[in-house]
Amino acid sequence: MSDAGSDRGKRPHVVIVGCGFGGLEAARTLGDDGLVDITIIDRSNHHLFQPLLYQVATAGLSAPSIAAPIRHMLRRQRNVTVLMAEVAGIDKQRGQVLLADGQQIAYDHLIVASGATHSYFGREADWAEHAPGLKTLADAFKLRAKVLMAFEQAEVLDEEGARRPWLNFVVIGAGPTGVEMAGTLAEIARHTLKNEFRRIDPSRAQVLLLEGSPRVLQAFQPELSAKAQTQLEGLGVAVRTGARVVGIDAEGVDVEQDGRRERIPARTVVWAAGVAASPLGRNLEVPLDRAGRVIVDGRLNIPGHPEIFVVGDLAAAQSLERDGSSKPVPGVSPGAKQMGRHAAQTIRARIAGRPEPAPFRYIDYGALATIGRKAAVADVGRFQFSGYFAWLFWLFVHVYFLIGFRNRLVVLMDWAWAYWSFARYARVVAETAQPPESAAAPQNMGPERKS
Amino acid sequence: MSDAGSDRGKRPHVVIVGCGFGGLEAARTLGDDGLVDITIIDRSNHHLFQPLLYQVATAGLSAPSIAAPIRHMLRRQRNVTVLMAEVAGIDKQRGQVLLADGQQIAYDHLIVASGATHSYFGREADWAEHAPGLKTLADAFKLRAKVLMAFEQAEVLDEEGARRPWLNFVVIGAGPTGVEMAGTLAEIARHTLKNEFRRIDPSRAQVLLLEGSPRVLQAFQPELSAKAQTQLEGLGVAVRTGARVVGIDAEGVDVEQDGRRERIPARTVVWAAGVAASPLGRNLEVPLDRAGRVIVDGRLNIPGHPEIFVVGDLAAAQSLERDGSSKPVPGVSPGAKQMGRHAAQTIRARIAGRPEPAPFRYIDYGALATIGRKAAVADVGRFQFSGYFAWLFWLFVHVYFLIGFRNRLVVLMDWAWAYWSFARYARVVAETAQPPESAAAPQNMGPERKS
Repeated sequence: MSDAGSDRGKRPHVVIVGCGFGGLEAARTLGDDGLVDITIIDRSNHHLFQPLLYQVATAGLSAPSIAAPIRHMLRRQRNVTVLMAEVAGIDKQRGQVLLADGQQIAYDHLIVASGATHSYFGREADWAEHAPGLKTLADAFKLRAKVLMAFEQAEVLDEEGARRPWLNFVVIGAGPTGVEMAGTLAEIARHTLKNEFRRIDPSRAQVLLLEGSPRVLQAFQPELSAKAQTQLEGLGVAVRTGARVVGIDAEGVDVEQDGRRERIPARTVVWAAGVAASPLGRNLEVPLDRAGRVIVDGRLNIPGHPEIFVVGDLAAAQSLERDGSSKPVPGVSPGAKQMGRHAAQTIRARIAGRPEPAPFRYIDYGALATIGRKAAVADVGRFQFSGYFAWLFWLFVHVYFLIGFRNRLVVLMDWAWAYWSFARYARVVAETAQPPESAAAPQNMGPERKS
Repeated sequence: MSDAGSDRGKRPHVVIVGCGFGGLEAARTLGDDGLVDITIIDRSNHHLFQPLLYQVATAGLSAPSIAAPIRHMLRRQRNVTVLMAEVAGIDKQRGQVLLADGQQIAYDHLIVASGATHSYFGREADWAEHAPGLKTLADAFKLRAKVLMAFEQAEVLDEEGARRPWLNFVVIGAGPTGVEMAGTLAEIARHTLKNEFRRIDPSRAQVLLLEGSPRVLQAFQPELSAKAQTQLEGLGVAVRTGARVVGIDAEGVDVEQDGRRERIPARTVVWAAGVAASPLGRNLEVPLDRAGRVIVDGRLNIPGHPEIFVVGDLAAAQSLERDGSSKPVPGVSPGAKQMGRHAAQTIRARIAGRPEPAPFRYIDYGALATIGRKAAVADVGRFQFSGYFAWLFWLFVHVYFLIGFRNRLVVLMDWAWAYWSFARYARVVAETAQPPESAAAPQNMGPERKS
């Protein structure tokens, strides 16, 4: 640990916005050897391992298993200051980040790594309320409570027709997140909750996965899409491709397929269909792509400002391949991590007067998606495989390459324990019973209990 | 596992309201041998180990470590139906429990075990918002976020005077809960967060414990009160006895002591000073004591209704001692558990036509309170002891006698792991940065980022 405190103020100051995979890797790569001072700003107090967020949403893991306090992770880097704050804007001319409380943080170098949020294709105001997405811990907690309370509500209701919408679960979007959510929901209904209800049979819950394009996991090879669909159906998930969602409300969804329109009653709808770049992208006043991502060059810089880098889901970056071709960098966790590292290496090289690294090249570990507890599909370069082996590979890649907190062995033991116990102890939620809106007025049996 | 399903409807039906220590023990004692059918109703989906709730509030343990899903715990009792619902009232004449959604649940025997909530001595409307209590998981989550965000806010602020209220923590009420909270808050500030901030020194946080009576732990022997105070002060807690709180708002508390009135600026205030019985007590329309608890006889019945039992924090019960004297049963977890068991044994005896158990006698394990990670005070019959040994005793008693979920060894390992890592990984919270109300309007540096 260097004595980085005494030279504070004389060293170049790097500000990092966001402590996801991109921001965290940048902070670590910038190092603690006295070359720079670092301020990292995040609106949350934790770094989140997003690939496993769906496990928190389905009560398979608790939040501390997939997240860690940022300032705890970075405590040994004495040159790093962590601020939990909202960034309101960026002043490129003055070289300052503006916080929502009015403070201005001056930078010599800036790395914007604020990630992505949900996109509801213009139907934000209507749909977001009824079909929550899954990007943050708050999302996962809300979804978890919604799923668990749906079963509880079905158990309390004493009429079969009233129960059905509570036992219908719809997942919109069959990318990796949607596939993982749908598979896990089916497992909860069929295994976890199997013997725990008396008035309902939880295995009669129906999970429906809707996808607008012709196949699930559109970004994977077609053979893997087919395998994934087979595995999902084996778990009891009903999969519908070529199905467009045209309406969402509190009691269900409206779907258009093959020219016909259908109403599906469902009290629990999960949105896994679209992401949009963080609004800070627009704030930079530079060209964006259609998803709102900031177009960056081979150094991950924006035009005209070599001191400003954009990495991760907010960036539309190109990977310069060995054969000289360019491939777009996908919005996945390893991409964010590699970009964060590259930006930090570039900054260090420039400050030290050394040659910069070569233009960014993305090392593709392949696309992975799990389906339930024992299966997955993996698309790795020239290899495609699926099933139990793919699942083990998924686990290895995630733990080895991506975990940024605790000891990897501890994380593995933690997840193994959760897996083995399968009791989903993360089922404990703070929410309490709410009578349904359509309940008859209670008869006057005595003073009404105030909740 | 008995085949309890086929005779459903012909057996006496016992309804239990609340699945805390009293309700859970009653359900288990009533058994699964086919004598009764049981419906247990709780507004939460979990049984809570309340003695360790302060650990969740101070990010020492995560919720699944101290709570378990009710229907998971009772899944093997096939004669038990678990309903997550709010009870709106009780109709003694018709023998029905009324749910908030309008359903009526008929019973042959009723055990009301709905516990206690906070009392703000009539100042509910004003004080509850600023000084949250600690009775449920929702309380603990809110408090945890409040405490952690206070340090984060102090770090972001760049002016010393503005920081001080965020680093002042006030705990009101020096019973076991208040003492435990104050001690743990001091430990967080001095140990857990020690190296993790750059702009503030978290060990300069001040924890103030206010108690209206002349000593802390008023229910313990005076020598133990003195020892507890010494241990608290050793941890850095400022203790003030004979100090009455006369005002609470968003920015601090007003205290009257020795005839003088003082204003203490503090953004985080914890209420640990008073409890009130659940409103279901009034609903029963029977005599209550001053705290709103239902007065019950030696069988734990209410007057005129031998089929209705009240147990736990809702009951004002007497213990018939061996020498014939009566002592009030304290509102503690072992008391609730023993009362729940006694009521269930009485019901079983009556149904089977056997003699009822003797009038209720409370076995007093003694009063225990921890102070930080290594010390406690214990008042057990003729023995009083304190320090590390008392802390071990506390641990033994809690794990052995009170844990109602999982394997005791697993719970012990879980808590041991949390203790040893001391990193308080339960620090991860969903809340995001909120600019303080008094922040200056942000200067117009660009489009404002919508949070």
